[in-house]
Amino acid sequence: MNIRLIVKTVGYMLLVEAGCMILPLVVSLYYGEPTWRVFVLVAAVCALLGAVMARPRHGDNVLMQGRDGYVAVAAAWVSLTLFGAVPYVISGAIPRYIDAVFETVSGLTTTGATILQEIESLPKGILFWRSETQWIGGMGVLVMFLALMPKAGAGAVHLMRAESPGPIKSKIMPKVSDTAKILYCIYISLTVLEIVSLRIAGMTWFDAVNHGFTTMATGGFSVKNASIAAYDYLPGVAWVISVFTFLAGVNFALMFAALRGGIRQVFRSAELRLYVSLIVLCTVAITLNLWLQGGAPLSGAAGDAAFQVITIVTTTGYTTRDFGQWSVFCQAILVILMLPGACAGSTAGGMKLSRVLIWCKSLRRDLRRIVHPKHVSVIRIDGQDVGESVVATCHGFLVAYLLILIAGALVVSWDGPSLVESLTASITCIGNVGPGLGAVGPSGNFSYLSGLSKAVLSLEMLMGRLELMPLLVLLAPGTWRRH
Amino acid sequence: MNIRLIVKTVGYMLLVEAGCMILPLVVSLYYGEPTWRVFVLVAAVCALLGAVMARPRHGDNVLMQGRDGYVAVAAAWVSLTLFGAVPYVISGAIPRYIDAVFETVSGLTTTGATILQEIESLPKGILFWRSETQWIGGMGVLVMFLALMPKAGAGAVHLMRAESPGPIKSKIMPKVSDTAKILYCIYISLTVLEIVSLRIAGMTWFDAVNHGFTTMATGGFSVKNASIAAYDYLPGVAWVISVFTFLAGVNFALMFAALRGGIRQVFRSAELRLYVSLIVLCTVAITLNLWLQGGAPLSGAAGDAAFQVITIVTTTGYTTRDFGQWSVFCQAILVILMLPGACAGSTAGGMKLSRVLIWCKSLRRDLRRIVHPKHVSVIRIDGQDVGESVVATCHGFLVAYLLILIAGALVVSWDGPSLVESLTASITCIGNVGPGLGAVGPSGNFSYLSGLSKAVLSLEMLMGRLELMPLLVLLAPGTWRRH
Repeated sequence: MNIRLIVKTVGYMLLVEAGCMILPLVVSLYYGEPTWRVFVLVAAVCALLGAVMARPRHGDNVLMQGRDGYVAVAAAWVSLTLFGAVPYVISGAIPRYIDAVFETVSGLTTTGATILQEIESLPKGILFWRSETQWIGGMGVLVMFLALMPKAGAGAVHLMRAESPGPIKSKIMPKVSDTAKILYCIYISLTVLEIVSLRIAGMTWFDAVNHGFTTMATGGFSVKNASIAAYDYLPGVAWVISVFTFLAGVNFALMFAALRGGIRQVFRSAELRLYVSLIVLCTVAITLNLWLQGGAPLSGAAGDAAFQVITIVTTTGYTTRDFGQWSVFCQAILVILMLPGACAGSTAGGMKLSRVLIWCKSLRRDLRRIVHPKHVSVIRIDGQDVGESVVATCHGFLVAYLLILIAGALVVSWDGPSLVESLTASITCIGNVGPGLGAVGPSGNFSYLSGLSKAVLSLEMLMGRLELMPLLVLLAPGTWRRH
Repeated sequence: MNIRLIVKTVGYMLLVEAGCMILPLVVSLYYGEPTWRVFVLVAAVCALLGAVMARPRHGDNVLMQGRDGYVAVAAAWVSLTLFGAVPYVISGAIPRYIDAVFETVSGLTTTGATILQEIESLPKGILFWRSETQWIGGMGVLVMFLALMPKAGAGAVHLMRAESPGPIKSKIMPKVSDTAKILYCIYISLTVLEIVSLRIAGMTWFDAVNHGFTTMATGGFSVKNASIAAYDYLPGVAWVISVFTFLAGVNFALMFAALRGGIRQVFRSAELRLYVSLIVLCTVAITLNLWLQGGAPLSGAAGDAAFQVITIVTTTGYTTRDFGQWSVFCQAILVILMLPGACAGSTAGGMKLSRVLIWCKSLRRDLRRIVHPKHVSVIRIDGQDVGESVVATCHGFLVAYLLILIAGALVVSWDGPSLVESLTASITCIGNVGPGLGAVGPSGNFSYLSGLSKAVLSLEMLMGRLELMPLLVLLAPGTWRRH
């Protein structure tokens, strides 16, 4: 392992983080809040430390290897979290450091689970920082760095691979930095479009910017205690958010293809079709259940169901209704939706629908082999062969995902909430969704959990966001051996 | 597909079932119960129908193919269930047919979930039939048939493969019928040994025989409403049952090896070591939790914990304590234990520990590949190569298991019990365990569920017992095409 390259990457990331703190600093100054000093201080420390770590040195031309990329990404995200939590503590918004770490991880990983019981009274600068962590975590901090850098080394592709979600990494452009630039261009454009739409729908600029940031990142942090239910008096808000949440769950490479005129490619995408079908099917099921069993009027039920299904399947986690009060059937559907998540190459968390496709196609092939023992075939998605090594890695991912999910739930269960709370806390954190059920549900928060549970759930969020491998590689035999 | 061979297999199975009804018939006569007429009637119908279906015909020499074996086993088990349920209905013990089907499937698949609210008042003949369904289902009805048959055709190996559990089918003897005979010899010997031990521990002969049948099958049906807690005044009973339940969860092929002097092979078995470690680890964890949080005395807690861990991990499902009243942490451990089950080639249900081993080794290989991209290795268990096709099928099994488990939980959730009940009902049924939590927990039963839920859970039990593939093959493309 090349320690020097990893330290350097972490250094660059701290520089990026220092840069990101300029925005909340400006917000604090604009609103005349004393928290601006906090951001100046933390940004200065980050910048100094980052500059030292990233300074050019002899022997920097070594090429980055695959595993170095994974380790660098893991190290970078841990550092971002540890420093990103500091403003909460110094400003007094979140006094305990472990709570601040939980909130920061929840932000950067676009989970949206919170330990805050009272959000609206916090300084605006802090709220803005909270939303911004989601936005930069959504598309990826390293991807942002690659987009900003004039020329990325040949090893940059490993950083990109390690940070971007999905079983198959789509290459939009031959050069990594161009791909990163295009992804961020789409991301920024959609965010701006949403902010303007939310302003038109009646939100204040501050609320619009915050929700624009957290929607496009499929994050789910809100500046209101009641989440999107606080805007019930503005009927357009929920619709705008639904549309942009849906878009944030689509593969950005597919959007780029659409922009370049490849509409046919979009309609041919098996993953997108699965995504849309899943949303429609679950919305219909929940609507019927709310209507038949709950006695809700049909149109209201459909609106509520659609909003909740989209926000959960994209692992955003906003709420307009407390679905913890819905029937068990509706709750079951929403919890199940937390597992797959949305499309690969989007900002959504979860296992990703393209993996679900690969699993199902692989299962179908197994069954076919029993019927015709000599049957040989490759798995294809959208007409392209999926290599056997990708299929194997997808299966390994499933095993690791389940093991971590179960282990996390077991640790949380020691604290003594109910089994549903332990299980959904673990599912919602590893899937980067946000709300669970019961005490960690839409009307609750994660504050009452023990420090151990918060630490484990933080680790789960990080593992989920980085799709397990970067952090698991740290445990693999041979990673720590020099060669 | 060869319909003729499948019909013939089903015919033989009905003949075996008719034969099995002689025992409860004798029990009914011995206790002077009028239910003996029921068994005479149903046995006669089964025998007649079986004889017609299995009668020799022109063209019977066609060799059975792999997929025919799967379909035949699926068809045989469905038929056994449909006819095995009839005595309950005619005798009036279980008036509704869907309930009787649930109870019969739960018996044959050695699940032990019951819809009966009052067990002890039932006729002894019916209780005996209930226990006997578990015993014949435990080792396998087709395996019994192969053991009884003077000469099994060359295709019999496919029947054996389709009915016996585990990812790798161990071949004890070159001839299938010899293997079947040895398996049943060990099974019968252990059962007799347990019956005698239970009698010595203080049970009546009737109770001892019934519990011997349901222990060795890892079934879990009891003739007492309170399950094994009814024998709290006989301190030896729980220990005898613990020991034999543990043995029933061990691979029978390994026991045979031990009997032939291969003790070293036993200690080398990775699956057995995992099985023992899991039991020790979970027992210690639950004991500590009961002691620290619940304030129970240490020795009592250890005994309760050990009994419950063994009975759950072997998917037997007896209870001495209502673990639904234990802490969330203990409940979480028990629910997690329901998933893997015990060793392959035992009478236990669940996913089987050898599959867990294969998944973990495969995951480790994936991680190693990230560190060393050119790394190539085969997965080995006990020094033997596990073929890549077995690894792939294991992964397919995991996907199918989860999909069925989740779909089952979703259907049950429509009935409106809590999420924990829906989920654990599905886990306990597909894993052939028995009790879940809450209303379907140790102190409850499955009677309050709707007919639809009972049907779906019955299907899950059948799928779990036959390890999914036989029933999934019925849905595979090409199975229904003649060739």
